[in-house]
Amino acid sequence: MSEHTVSSFDEELKQIDTLIRDMGALAATMVADATRALTHSDTALAQRVVSDDAVMDAHQRELDTRAITLIAKRQPMADDLRSSVGAIRMAGDLERIGDLAKNIAKRVGAVGEGAAPRVLSHSIESMTDLVLGQVSGVIEDYVAGDAPALAQLRDDDECIDEKYTSVFRELLTYMMEDPRNISACTHLLFCAKNLERIGDHVTNIAENAYYVLTGQQLPPNRPKLDETTVSAPAA
Amino acid sequence: MSEHTVSSFDEELKQIDTLIRDMGALAATMVADATRALTHSDTALAQRVVSDDAVMDAHQRELDTRAITLIAKRQPMADDLRSSVGAIRMAGDLERIGDLAKNIAKRVGAVGEGAAPRVLSHSIESMTDLVLGQVSGVIEDYVAGDAPALAQLRDDDECIDEKYTSVFRELLTYMMEDPRNISACTHLLFCAKNLERIGDHVTNIAENAYYVLTGQQLPPNRPKLDETTVSAPAA
Repeated sequence: MSEHTVSSFDEELKQIDTLIRDMGALAATMVADATRALTHSDTALAQRVVSDDAVMDAHQRELDTRAITLIAKRQPMADDLRSSVGAIRMAGDLERIGDLAKNIAKRVGAVGEGAAPRVLSHSIESMTDLVLGQVSGVIEDYVAGDAPALAQLRDDDECIDEKYTSVFRELLTYMMEDPRNISACTHLLFCAKNLERIGDHVTNIAENAYYVLTGQQLPPNRPKLDETTVSAPAA
Repeated sequence: MSEHTVSSFDEELKQIDTLIRDMGALAATMVADATRALTHSDTALAQRVVSDDAVMDAHQRELDTRAITLIAKRQPMADDLRSSVGAIRMAGDLERIGDLAKNIAKRVGAVGEGAAPRVLSHSIESMTDLVLGQVSGVIEDYVAGDAPALAQLRDDDECIDEKYTSVFRELLTYMMEDPRNISACTHLLFCAKNLERIGDHVTNIAENAYYVLTGQQLPPNRPKLDETTVSAPAA
C-alpha cells in the first residue's frame, strides 16, 4: 500500500471496509433466514428478511456516497482508487444478494405447506449450506487478505451450479408426478435459481476482492455450468 | 450545468454519453433478437445474442474506466459528479439487461419446438413489445433530457408486471394440462421472469437518468405488483 500524505484517507477507507463487512454479515443472515423461512413455512421470519433488505439498501447507499466522495475529494491513484472502486462493486453485489434473499422470502406464502416442499427441503437445504459457506467465506477471505482462498472460492461455485441442476431436475419430476405440485414447485424453482444466482454474485465479489488485494485480475471466468439452459431433461 | 475551466471535461462526458447510447441500442437489439429466437426456435440468432453480450460487457468496462478516471482526475463536484456516477449506474443496468437477454437466448435449445411454445408465443411477444418499448424509450428520454417522460416511463413498468403475472398463470395451466409441457414451460417461465426483470432495470435506469437530469430523486418506488410471489393460483 502507498503511504498517504492525508492520514484521514486511511480512516475513510477503513470505514468503507467496515460497511462491506456489515453488509456481508447481513447478506449471510438474510440468505439463512430466507431459506429457513421457506423450508419451515415461517412467514414471520420471511417478513424479517423483507425488512432487512431495507437496511441493506441503506448500507449500500451510504457506502456509495462515502466511496464516491472519497474519490472526488482525494483523487486517489492506483491502489487506493482500486480499493474505493472495488468497494463500490462489492457493495453492489452484496445488495443484489439481499434482493435475491428477499425474493425467496416473498415466495414463502405462495409455496405454502404443500407436500412437495417437505420432500424437497433436503435438497434446498444442502444447496443453501453451500451458498451460505460461500457468502460468509468470501468476506472472511477478503478481510483476511487471502487472495489464493478467493481464487479457490470462485472455483467452488461449480458445486452450486451442479446442485442447482439436480434440484431443477428433481422439481420437474415432482411436477410431472402430480399436477397439484406444479404451482408450489415453480416457486421453489425460482428459489433454487435465486440461490444459484447468489453464488454468481459471490463469484463477482471474489473477483473484485482479488483485484483489490493483488491488483491482478483472476483469469477469465470458466464457462458456466448451469446445464438446465442448454439441455432439458426429456419430458 | 456548471461551466468548466477545463474544456475537455465536457468532451469526456460526451464520450461517456455516447457509450450509454450505444449500450442502450445494443440492449434493445439483444432483447428483440433473444425473444425472436425463442418464439421462432432460431438457434443461430440465439447464438448471436450470446456473442453480443461480450460486446456489451466490453462497453461497460470501457465506460467504467472512463467515468472513474474522469472522477479521479477532474474531481468534479455537484452536477458533474452526478453525471459520471449516473453513467456508471446506468451502464450497470444496461449490462444486466444484456445478461438477461443472453439467458433467454441460452434457453432456446431447451424450449425446443414443442407445442406449448407455439401457443404461448403471442403472450411472450406482447410482453416483449412492452419491454422493448421501455428499453428504447428510456434511452431516448434520457438523450432528449425529458425528465417528465422518464417519470411516466417508470410508472409504465406496472403493465409489464401485470403481463408477467398473466403469462405466469397461463404457463401453469399448460403444465397442469399436460406433463409433457412441463420442461419447456419451466424454461419459458424463466424467460418471462427475465423480461419482467428487464423492466425493473429500465425502472432503475429511469430513476438514475431522472436524477442526472434534475438533481432530484423520483418519489420512492411504488410497491411491486408481481403477484405471483404473494399469491399462487390454486393448483
